[in-house]
Parts: sequence; C-alpha cells; structure tokens
Amino acid sequence: MLSVVTDYLTEALGHVEEDRSGSLAGYIPELAAADPHCLGAAFAMVDGTVYGAGDVDTAFTIQSISKPFVYALALADRGFEEVLAKVGVEPSGEAFNQISLEPGSGRPLNPMINAGAITAHSLVGSHDLDAAERTRRVIAGLSAFAGRPLSVDESVCSSEMAHAHRNLAIAHMLRSYGILDDDPRAVVDGYIRQCSVLVTARDLAIMAATLADHGLNPLSGERVVSESVIRQVLSVMATCGMYDAAGDWATQVGIPAKSGVAGGLIGALPGQVGIATFSPRLDAHGNSVRGVALFEQFSGDMGLHVMSVPPAARAVVRSHYVDGTGADAIRVVQMQGGIRFAGAEKIVREVIDASPTEPAVALDLTLVFSLDDVAQRMLAEIARRLTGEGRRVYVVDPEAVFPSTWLTQAGPVDVVTTLPRSTAQ
Amino acid sequence: MLSVVTDYLTEALGHVEEDRSGSLAGYIPELAAADPHCLGAAFAMVDGTVYGAGDVDTAFTIQSISKPFVYALALADRGFEEVLAKVGVEPSGEAFNQISLEPGSGRPLNPMINAGAITAHSLVGSHDLDAAERTRRVIAGLSAFAGRPLSVDESVCSSEMAHAHRNLAIAHMLRSYGILDDDPRAVVDGYIRQCSVLVTARDLAIMAATLADHGLNPLSGERVVSESVIRQVLSVMATCGMYDAAGDWATQVGIPAKSGVAGGLIGALPGQVGIATFSPRLDAHGNSVRGVALFEQFSGDMGLHVMSVPPAARAVVRSHYVDGTGADAIRVVQMQGGIRFAGAEKIVREVIDASPTEPAVALDLTLVFSLDDVAQRMLAEIARRLTGEGRRVYVVDPEAVFPSTWLTQAGPVDVVTTLPRSTAQ
Amino acid sequence: MLSVVTDYLTEALGHVEEDRSGSLAGYIPELAAADPHCLGAAFAMVDGTVYGAGDVDTAFTIQSISKPFVYALALADRGFEEVLAKVGVEPSGEAFNQISLEPGSGRPLNPMINAGAITAHSLVGSHDLDAAERTRRVIAGLSAFAGRPLSVDESVCSSEMAHAHRNLAIAHMLRSYGILDDDPRAVVDGYIRQCSVLVTARDLAIMAATLADHGLNPLSGERVVSESVIRQVLSVMATCGMYDAAGDWATQVGIPAKSGVAGGLIGALPGQVGIATFSPRLDAHGNSVRGVALFEQFSGDMGLHVMSVPPAARAVVRSHYVDGTGADAIRVVQMQGGIRFAGAEKIVREVIDASPTEPAVALDLTLVFSLDDVAQRMLAEIARRLTGEGRRVYVVDPEAVFPSTWLTQAGPVDVVTTLPRSTAQ
Amino acid sequence: MLSVVTDYLTEALGHVEEDRSGSLAGYIPELAAADPHCLGAAFAMVDGTVYGAGDVDTAFTIQSISKPFVYALALADRGFEEVLAKVGVEPSGEAFNQISLEPGSGRPLNPMINAGAITAHSLVGSHDLDAAERTRRVIAGLSAFAGRPLSVDESVCSSEMAHAHRNLAIAHMLRSYGILDDDPRAVVDGYIRQCSVLVTARDLAIMAATLADHGLNPLSGERVVSESVIRQVLSVMATCGMYDAAGDWATQVGIPAKSGVAGGLIGALPGQVGIATFSPRLDAHGNSVRGVALFEQFSGDMGLHVMSVPPAARAVVRSHYVDGTGADAIRVVQMQGGIRFAGAEKIVREVIDASPTEPAVALDLTLVFSLDDVAQRMLAEIARRLTGEGRRVYVVDPEAVFPSTWLTQAGPVDVVTTLPRSTAQ
Repeated sequence: MLSVVTDYLTEALGHVEEDRSGSLAGYIPELAAADPHCLGAAFAMVDGTVYGAGDVDTAFTIQSISKPFVYALALADRGFEEVLAKVGVEPSGEAFNQISLEPGSGRPLNPMINAGAITAHSLVGSHDLDAAERTRRVIAGLSAFAGRPLSVDESVCSSEMAHAHRNLAIAHMLRSYGILDDDPRAVVDGYIRQCSVLVTARDLAIMAATLADHGLNPLSGERVVSESVIRQVLSVMATCGMYDAAGDWATQVGIPAKSGVAGGLIGALPGQVGIATFSPRLDAHGNSVRGVALFEQFSGDMGLHVMSVPPAARAVVRSHYVDGTGADAIRVVQMQGGIRFAGAEKIVREVIDASPTEPAVALDLTLVFSLDDVAQRMLAEIARRLTGEGRRVYVVDPEAVFPSTWLTQAGPVDVVTTLPRSTAQ
Repeated sequence: MLSVVTDYLTEALGHVEEDRSGSLAGYIPELAAADPHCLGAAFAMVDGTVYGAGDVDTAFTIQSISKPFVYALALADRGFEEVLAKVGVEPSGEAFNQISLEPGSGRPLNPMINAGAITAHSLVGSHDLDAAERTRRVIAGLSAFAGRPLSVDESVCSSEMAHAHRNLAIAHMLRSYGILDDDPRAVVDGYIRQCSVLVTARDLAIMAATLADHGLNPLSGERVVSESVIRQVLSVMATCGMYDAAGDWATQVGIPAKSGVAGGLIGALPGQVGIATFSPRLDAHGNSVRGVALFEQFSGDMGLHVMSVPPAARAVVRSHYVDGTGADAIRVVQMQGGIRFAGAEKIVREVIDASPTEPAVALDLTLVFSLDDVAQRMLAEIARRLTGEGRRVYVVDPEAVFPSTWLTQAGPVDVVTTLPRSTAQ
Repeated sequence: MLSVVTDYLTEALGHVEEDRSGSLAGYIPELAAADPHCLGAAFAMVDGTVYGAGDVDTAFTIQSISKPFVYALALADRGFEEVLAKVGVEPSGEAFNQISLEPGSGRPLNPMINAGAITAHSLVGSHDLDAAERTRRVIAGLSAFAGRPLSVDESVCSSEMAHAHRNLAIAHMLRSYGILDDDPRAVVDGYIRQCSVLVTARDLAIMAATLADHGLNPLSGERVVSESVIRQVLSVMATCGMYDAAGDWATQVGIPAKSGVAGGLIGALPGQVGIATFSPRLDAHGNSVRGVALFEQFSGDMGLHVMSVPPAARAVVRSHYVDGTGADAIRVVQMQGGIRFAGAEKIVREVIDASPTEPAVALDLTLVFSLDDVAQRMLAEIARRLTGEGRRVYVVDPEAVFPSTWLTQAGPVDVVTTLPRSTAQ
Repeated sequence: MLSVVTDYLTEALGHVEEDRSGSLAGYIPELAAADPHCLGAAFAMVDGTVYGAGDVDTAFTIQSISKPFVYALALADRGFEEVLAKVGVEPSGEAFNQISLEPGSGRPLNPMINAGAITAHSLVGSHDLDAAERTRRVIAGLSAFAGRPLSVDESVCSSEMAHAHRNLAIAHMLRSYGILDDDPRAVVDGYIRQCSVLVTARDLAIMAATLADHGLNPLSGERVVSESVIRQVLSVMATCGMYDAAGDWATQVGIPAKSGVAGGLIGALPGQVGIATFSPRLDAHGNSVRGVALFEQFSGDMGLHVMSVPPAARAVVRSHYVDGTGADAIRVVQMQGGIRFAGAEKIVREVIDASPTEPAVALDLTLVFSLDDVAQRMLAEIARRLTGEGRRVYVVDPEAVFPSTWLTQAGPVDVVTTLPRSTAQ
C-alpha cells in the first residue's frame, strides 16, 4: 500500500513541473551549471518519518537557508542579549542584496539579510575561537540540525570567495561600525564556507522539522537548541524570511520559511512538520519559482498556516458529574486532549460554576495527552483552593502528564492512576 | 470561590500600576483630558466568558484598533481581489503617521497605517453606498464584532475633524492616485467617525475573541466574517500591527495585536483567547506603555506566542490492536484529540506500517473532538484504499466529528456510533 | 538689416524642430489640448530689448515657472528669516511630484517643489491679507516681473482645481505641521490661480531678464525686488530648479533655470540675459524636451555657463606712469573696465609695489564703467593711506562711478573730471 | 605700506579666533593630535600673488580637498564619457560617510563623496598603469595644481590604512558592481595615499586659484587641465562640495568649495581668486567650523558669490559717432571693457539701429581687453554683413584682442591699429 502523503507530494510536483519560468543564479559558474529541471519536495514529521517525491536526494549548497540555523546557534552560544545587541529583528522590506544597517549604530536589521547573517556567523561559539574553529563549529551545528555530518562543496566555496565583493563590502562596513570584531575577510571566508555546505531536500526537511519540534532533532533525538531559541528563530523567519515579499508570504502561505539561491526552500510549521523543496530556477526576489508554488499548494491544501489554529479549546471537558452522594460524593471532571491556557480556563470555570459542595473532587487527566506550563499552574491553583477549603482532591494521571513542580504547590493532593469510585454506590 | 484568571489579571495590573511613563495623546483636547491613571485588562474566551480587572467598563474611543476590523469588513464585502488591489500587506517599517504609499501605484503598504485604513473604510459595503450609509455599515460591523450596538463619541469626532489635516492630506493623495474613488473629505469624515466609536476593554476583548475564534462572535454566536478573512486579518496584524516595532513585538510577544491612540490595545491568539488592555499613556511609537508591558507579561506567563504551539501531534493514536482472529478479526485504530495534518499522517502511517491483513478495520473517532479538512481528506483516502482492497471499514464516530463530504468518497464505509466487537471472541 | 541674434535663434529652433519626442501634460484637458508643434525662443537683454523666433507671442500658462518669482515676492514681503523658517533651500533629488518635507519639522526642502511653492505662495504679502487679496498680490507681483499686467486662464484654473488632489494633500500635510497657517483649500486655490497666469515666451524672457538684472525690470525700470532676494532666488534655481536632473543641468547647461508643465522654460544668466523657450512636449522629468535641447545649444554656443566667467581681472590697470618730476611729480594709475575684488587687489598692489615717493597720486577712473562695493572700499583705503602719508590724491572720475560713501572715508581727496597734468612738464 | 588685503585677512581671522566650538577628527591618532588652535587664511590671485594671515605655512593632510582635483585629473586623462559612465554629478543630500550609489548601476552619485572619489582615483592615468604608478600620477597631478612637489605624510597614511574599513567596504561594493576594475584594496591604498598628501593653506589657495583661473597654475603658468574640465569640476563643487549642507552653502556663501577632515577648506571664485582656510575643529557636517565662518565673511564682505555678477554689459559702447560726411564719412563705434554675449549684442544693436548709410564703419576695439568666443563670432557676423552691403569695414585692434579665425569669415576687413580719420575733415 502506497503512502497517501507520498502520493500527495508526487501529485503536487506534477502541478508545477511544467513551469520553466525564472532563471538559475548566475553569479558563479557552479550555480549557473545546475540542472534547472531538478524538482523535489520532502516532508519530515517530528518523529523522523520523511516523505519525499522527486529529487530529494540530490545534493546542492544550502546557501541562505543556513541563516536561521546559524542564528539559532549564535543565540544558543552567546545568549539573546549579546546577539540582539548586534543583529536586530525588524523586517527590512528590501531585496536580499541590500545592506540594510540601522542608521547610526550600523546594526543589521535582521539575521536573514546578508549583513545580519555574516554577523550571526561571527557570533557562533565562544569569543576565543579562531576563524577556522568557528567555521567548524558552524558546520557541526548545521550537521546537528540535519542529524548527519554535512560536508562542504569546495568548488562552490572557492568560486564564491572569488565573487565575494559584496559580502566583503558588508563585512568591512560592519567592522567599521564595530559590529564585527574580527578580520572581515576571515569572517566572510567562514560565512561562504557555511553557505557552501551540501544538503539534500531530505536533509533540509529534517532541519526544518527540528525547528518545528522546538529544537529536538527527529532523527537523532538530540536537543540542538532550546525552545526559546527556536521561538525566536521562527518569529524572525515569519517576518523576515522571504525578503521583500514578507507580507505576501505571511498572508498567503503563513509558514515560517527561508530560501536559498541554489534552489532550496524550507518551511517549519510548529508542532507539525518540516517541509523542504528543491528547484533551482529563481524568481526576481531570489526565491525558487516552483518552490514558492509548492508552498502555496501545501498551505492551501493542508491548512498549514500559522494563523489557522483549530478550536482546540472547545472540548477539553469530556464529562462532568457527581459520583455518589452525601459524605461519599465525588465530583469528577474528566478532561481530554492537549490543554493550554484556554482549555485550563474552561476547567477552572467548570469547577467554579459548580461551586462544589462535595467533600471530594477528582480531576481526571486520563484522556489528556499534554498540559502546558500555564495549564499546570492553573490546575494546581484549583487544587490548592479546593484543598484549602478542606476538600479531598484526586488527580487521576495514569500517563504522568502532570509531572510538574507546580503540583507540589497544590496542597495535599492524591495523585492516582485510576478514578476512585464513591463507596456510596 | 474567586476566579483564578481574574486573580491573575489583578496581579498583572499590580505589576505595571506604578509605571507613570509615557504621555497622553495631545492632538485634541478630548484625548488630552483623559484620566491617565485608568488601567484595565480583560480576557474573553471563545465561549463568551470575559475575565476583567481594573477599568474594563470605562468607555474610550477605539481609534486605530478599528483598523483590523474594518479591513475584515472590506474583505468580506468586496472580496480579496478588489481589496488587495488597493491596499497591500507589506510591513512599512515606519512610524504610524507616515504615508507609506507604494511608489508608482500609490497603493498604501498595509491596512494598519492610516492610508491603508482610510482606503479600507472606503471599501466597506457595496459600491453604491453613499458616504453616510457606508459609515453606518462600518459602525454596524464594529458592533457585530463587539456583540452589542456601539455608539460614537460625537465630541471626539468633531474635535478630530478639526485636526484632520494629516488624514485629509492622505485622502487627497490617495484620490490623486485613484486609490480612493470618493470625495476625500467625505471618506475622512467617515473614517474619523469610525475611530470615534466608543468601546470598553470588555468590548475590545470580545472583538479580539471574535478574531481568535475565526470570525464567530462568542456572545452573539454570529459569524461576522469568514475564516479566510480572519486568517488574512490576523496575518496582517502579526506583521504590521505594532507599527515600527513589528519585529520586537513578533519575537517578544508573538500575539497578533493592534493599539489605539486612546490607550486601548488588543491581541488575538487564534483558537484561544481575545485580550484587551486599557491605559492611556503612550510610548514614542504611539502604543500604550502599560498595555505593552501587560502583553509582555501575558505572553511570558502563559505561553501565548503564536510560535509556541504544543506538540499536539504525538498522541493522536491512543491504541491500536486487533480484536479477534481469522475471518472475524477487526483491526482497531483508536484515535484521540484534535487531528490536523500531522496527526492524520500518523494514523495513515499506523495503518500502512501494519499492512493489515484483517478483513475489517475500525477507525475509532470516539475520543476525537476535531478533524480539520486535510485530516478528513486523509482518513477518507485511507478508507477508500482499504475498501478498494476489499476490506470492511468501520468509522466509529458517535459525536459526528467527520461529517464531511470527503467521507462519501471513501467507498462503502460503515459509520457507526460504537465500536463493533469481533464475533470470534 | 536683420538681427544677428534673431538669426541665431531661428537657426537654433531649426536644429530642434524635428524632435517630436516627449508628450503633452495630460492631467487636465486644457493642457492635453495644447498644440504640440508650438516652438519659440526669446532672449531679453537687461535694457529691455527682446529677440524672438517662433511662437514667442503665443499665450500659455506659467505653471511652475511662477515658483522662483513668487519665492522672490515672499522673501521681499516677509524677509529671509520668516521664509527660511518655513521653506528650506536643499535640493530634493526627487521627482517634481514628490512631497519632500524635512523629517520632523515638515518644512518643504526647497521652494521649487510643490510643497515649497505652496508655502511660498502663502507667505506673499502681509499676514493680514485674506486669500483673495494674497492671490491678487501674487499676480500683481508676477506682472511686475513681466512688466505688463498678466491675466489668468480661467478655464485652466478651474480644470486644475478639479484635479488638485495632490496639491490639496500637500497643503493639508503642511497645515498639519503648522507650516501653513491658513485654510489649505484657500491656499491651493490661490496657488493654482498663480500657476494659471497666462504668459508668452516674450513675457517669460523679460521676467528672466529681471532676475538677470538683479531685480530691475528692463521694460518698466521698476525695482521689483532687492538684489539680495535675487541672489537667493538664482542660487536656489541653480541647485533645485530642474528637479531630479539638477546635477546634469548644473554641469551641462549651467544656467539657473525653471520649467513649467505647459512647456515653458526660463533661464537667467546674471548680468547678461534672460532666456525663455516654449515647446509643450515634456520629457520624463516634466521638462520641455525641445526647451532643454535649446538651452544646451545656448550654453554651448554662447559660453552662458555660470562657471564660465572670463578673466576680467587681468587688464584693470591700463597704464601706470609718473608725470613730471620732483615736487611736481604725479603718479598716475589709469584703470579700465569693471572692477571687482580681484581687479581692486591688482590696483592696490600696483600702488604698494611702487612704494610711491611722489607728492601726488592720481587714480584715473575715466575708463572704468563699474566699481563694486568691495572695490570702492579698497580704493578708498588706498587713498586714505596715501593722504595719511601726506600725499595729495586725485580721483579722476568724469562719469561718477565712485559715488559711494566709502570715498568720504578716504581723507582729503580731490575728485576731478580730468587728469591733472604735472606743472613740471 | 602694509597690504590692504593682508590687513583684511588678519581682521577676518580676529572675528573667528575665539570660536572654540567643534571638535577634531578623532578616527586616527594623528588627526586627533592636531593643534586645535591653528588658524590661517590665504587668498591666491590668478597672477600668483598670495596673501596670507595666520598659520598659512603649517602643513596638514589634504584629505577630501583632493577630491575635486583628482576628479579633474580623471576627466583630463580619460575624457568625460568614460568618467561620467562611472561617476554621476547629482547631489547626494547625504552625509559625507554615506555610500550613495545609484540604485541598479551602483554608480556613485558624485565625485565629492568617498565612493565617487575612490572611483575617480581609479580613473587617473591610462588603463595600463599599475596601482603604484597610478598613485604617483595622482600625486604628481596634485603637485601640478599646487605648483610645487607635494609629499605624503607616511604616518597619517599608514594609520588611515589601519582604519580604512569603510573605504574598503565602499571599494568592494564598487567592485561588485563593476565600477571598479582593479583590486579594491590596492585602489583604497592609493586613495588613502592621495588623502595623506601634505599641503599648507598657501598651497591650497594656489590650487584653488588654478581652478579659478580655468586650469592655469598661477605660479608655474602650466595648464594643468582644460577649461572644460574646470567648468565641470566647479559645477560639481558648487552642487556637491559641502555634503548635506549644499543648499545653505550655495545660497549663503555661493563659492564652489571643498573641505577636508584635517581642517582645510578651499573655495574658487571663477576669474577672481582662490581661497583657502585652515582650522582643524569640525562641525557636525565634517566641515571646519572657523573655515565656514571665514567663508561666510568673505562672501558677505566682498561680493564673492557666483550669483553676484556685476552688470558688465552696460557700458561696452563707449562712443558712437560719424566722422566726416558724404562719401568720406566713417561711422565709428568705440567699445570698451570685456565683451561677452550681452555686450556684443549691444554693439550689434547699435549698428542695426543706426541703419548705417556711411560708406565706411570702424569697429574700435582699442579700449577692449577681452572678447570671448561668442562676441568674436557676433562682431565677425556684423562685419560680414557690412562688407556684404559693399561697405568698407575697419577693425581697430591695437592689442590684438580679436585674433580669432572668426575674423577671417568677416569678408574683406581692414584690421588696423589706429582709428582712421575721415579725409573729409
């Protein structure tokens, strides 16, 4: 039996296959010599399953798609304060080859433009690394996102260095503002090496899935960076990832994304999926023509838009009843699903509206598969108030979804694995 | 028993209460005469429950907070094509009082700046409305978002008209480009009337909750605008709502938001909650000082960031087993929670990996509370393939979460309300 | 006998006659209906002689050519300080239809763009004029520059008012910054009336000659504005007159100039000539195509470039000798031409280098036709020193070129009309 | 007897001496260590006389004042077409440290900003020079302007190289656009060497006088560059020389000028004088505070504003009479002064208005000291017409001011050295 998802991807490629518009990046011979017909798409699920169709195992250089990942590494290695002091988070509304430095300070507007990406490269690793060590750390970091050791296309790398005048201009300008501390040429060398890392669409899908799964690599299980770093990276991709078409992309596709001049394009939908496409012909913005078309299909067909969140809150209370009577009565609130603020609020309300008079209350989490931090705090607070009123409180939690320290603040609660029954029955 | 959420809000207000920085909008006497100490915050849940603390019933003028709602009305009344032809969706990276028209076409960059908002006002209702009728339609639309009839502060309105030179300048400029078709003064009159609508923080929270609940008003139950309109509005709020601090807001707060010069500030977290704050002193960007501080608290405390989506996908398959043996065997896949693409993919995979040989398969949706469109299509496709192989397929759906037309394409499926048992047992 | 200059102009028109490129201004029907074949050129000398060829008596609207003249009127009526506080003098580097206000203050960058011209219009006359009186003062002022009463093309005027949205936008914006104090619509009414004044190429040449002759109208002899006002106006025309092609014009043509959308173009070469051309087809900058070509010819053929000043200083000392001997000896310094700083310096040097020992010195101005202020001061200083040393000083000045008050500071000088002869001869 | 001009300069220095505002350039130690009290001013006349007061023989680095001279050298060596293709002439309206490249082409806006000056440096000499040869040619050219061999401050030069990141950024950017053909670092090396040339205020005054005298060095008599090159350089200095204060300077001072970061400032008034000042403290625009104040004095006191041209045209016809009667009558037109277009036009008119019937006409140039090209052409045309009518024409030209080829086109004219007398007398 063939995979539904693979079939879908194959069909989606079919819809864009005939589009021959756009043109190859031509500034170095290696990119100009790419096969323009290449076309591939891959979905990586957060458990490591990868679906692919077309040329998903063809290697090409990562180019600008490295930017969000190296920004993540810089944030992880140096902390938010140091990185934000040197690279902003504002959309530039400008083409990918603009300099876009903040007037006065010279701070690059965001890490998705070259100036910001070169700066982010220089901020990976500790201060005492030399340029070669820093570049090795960058490539090791990209490999951690991909879940396998990545290597550099030396031919692209040396060709890019011979055409690096714009990046050298940017680096010298950053050096003149004190944004870069190191030798501009050495930083550009490292940055170009970073951009020359070879990946496949399959690799990129895994890298995107690592973003989608909050920093956990779905293949290796490694935590590459923290959740807060990922949140920052996804936010910046959402507003600055697609160059001067940021608003169009945000409304029509709605998936935090990043493209590369070799034809790659990734998108990460938080909690769901990492997506990568590969097709080398580029539009005027420098984005892959067929890659953009594929993402528009994916977003439209699959509701994969960050502003299309389902009404998860509605049904968190599965049932609510009183078991038994009098001194034996137990009020049971049976919850279900994943519970965040809005869900927890509902549960709080059920309990408040009920003004329970029963001597015992059971909060049944058996059908709950996740409780986020705020939900844990809110349930703990309910429990605390109920115990404060002298009631007995059971938390029925057979799968230990409520392991948090918050629970310890809830007073003398009974955590049990099955629902207690009223002895009155 | 007091509400946990109300207590939280009260505590949050306490943290910002002492902040006296910023200053009142001073361009008209009415705003300059506002009580600078006012402070309130409200959360509206998607079922209509409203939590409030502080001055949540004090009336003030809606001002720019009307912009996303009137943009929504224009999209609903005229369609995406006509509206997008006249108002863009790109961040302006500029202060709120810039004109920010696209060079050449004169199209306002986005509907959150005045030029775009004035244009959006002019696009509400059908073409044949006169200015007064259009303004009435706008106010009726805002009232529909609020779930109660809203009225205009006539004193603010006439004072604003006397100080409307910048808006008149913008409107004449738009008229000169053919972006506005109507008399510029009449449009500005209507726009100022729109901005002078009186609301409370409670109203604004309900309005924001209507955005959060995809266009359904939680009080009236009315569908005010369609889901696709809301998705567009939330996307634009996310990238353009907070003026020139868009990137900071997107990373640090991560809630689609809009502020008004009278001190209001709203945020809508899709599927969760509508939030409103009220505090009249403004920062240099024109946003409420204490409002911004409150949103930072809310986002940090409650995980209410659009890029903080929980890993909902993990647990959609609750159990998977074969009941009975031989010709009587039924393979049962018991699902749970809200199922979207990533969840549906898991289910598809369970079935594929199993390469089921049993003559019957039961897809048990009993514990599922929502199936989005793509998930329905994927389950239908699985069912179609299984029936195509000659197997019997049961869809166990006691709460009718799978009502869609997709199911009819799944072949001869048995939709049942309880799980069939193998007779072999 | 035909005029050499007229022949030259006729020949110059011949060189551009076949050029049909460019197009008529089309924003109002009256301009779109102009005869595109019209072609004329006129030179007005500073004594009122006018040479013309082609359509020099065809009336058309003055449009933006009114700007430098109305700026002059504002400077004359309100003084430099008040006008400079509201209109800058910096080139905008932008197209003629940009707003170009200084960030923060809203001050228009210069008086040659519409924002600055509208502001200049509002500054003509005293503060207490009403809008109609101000407009009459503006038209009377333009008439004074032209040396005849000018009238308004009412048809163009009312048509422009119906298409004045851009100017209304600008005026409202200026009003919002407090740059305009009056009702924006009334100011725009007046400004459009100013632009609708009917002129011929002949009129424009006289107006330009008034600029070239430092404010004296060559026909009426009236001093329309002061020399210092003219210097300011010419300086601003030189840097801001030709919109975004300012640098090209300054280098290639080098004549302070201003164009109008009806096809007029004027240039003023200080001390020499006022030039006007008329040809309605415009280039992309909004300047008359054939007008620009004619000015390029004039500048090239006639050395009429402000940076092509002849070496006038060389020959100011015509002869220098001692007449007679002993106690009767007179040192004679015979000067010639127009004397400015560099010439006066030479004369000073002749006298210093000579270390005269003769008891008398004659400064012979018989062949001098002008002495500017600094030259007068320097000659007076020489005379003062010579008389201070006890010498007798004659100033031979039959045509009274040295009437200044400076002379009175020169000590006991004999001003005579013929050169005294040594009695020793 | 002391010089009037020297006294004036001493007095002028006295007026600004107490001004201690502004600060030294601090980006390299050598500039930061300059003596802030230095103050000097020099005037160089076009015959080589130099007046000086204060520190006019103190050496300092030329810095940006080299820009107009090196631009002149590039124009002379490569021609206008090649240079204009790579460097524009438009004011940038920006601070001196902006990049200001034309969008798309990357062409620097003008040669007075660093990007344009670096490009101009690269265009000096023939294409086949290597970098060291080119730099030697640049320094030789600056020496030719100064009239003495100039040398480089090696200490400043190497210190500037260590802080050249901004210029390296610019050069790499120019290289990426193909504006520079050579190695960016080598060009910047040469450019910094150019800026490190040592000059005194006296040198700078001579260099400015070379500009004022149309390319002739007043000390050496050498023609350094052609008149057309000088006209271009002066025009560009007038519009782009004083950075972002171009309009203020053009209106208030009106002298084509250029400043340097070491405290030098030059101005060239065509046909009159070269001016230089030296005072190291700089204002926010990077111009010498006291230098600017001195130029404002000079312009105000001495009428040295390019738009203050005296009415030279008025008196070109000194006398006009008929000598003798009948067949012997000679019409005599006695001219005087320097004659340009406007003067020649007057003479033409005298002859035309007279409709001469006399058999002979004498054009008496005895008192004329210059006739420019157009004046020669016009007088030749008059003579041609008179001879064409069968009249005898004398050109009385004892000092050969009319040597031109134009005269040969005037028909059978008698060029004589004294005025012929009518035999009829």
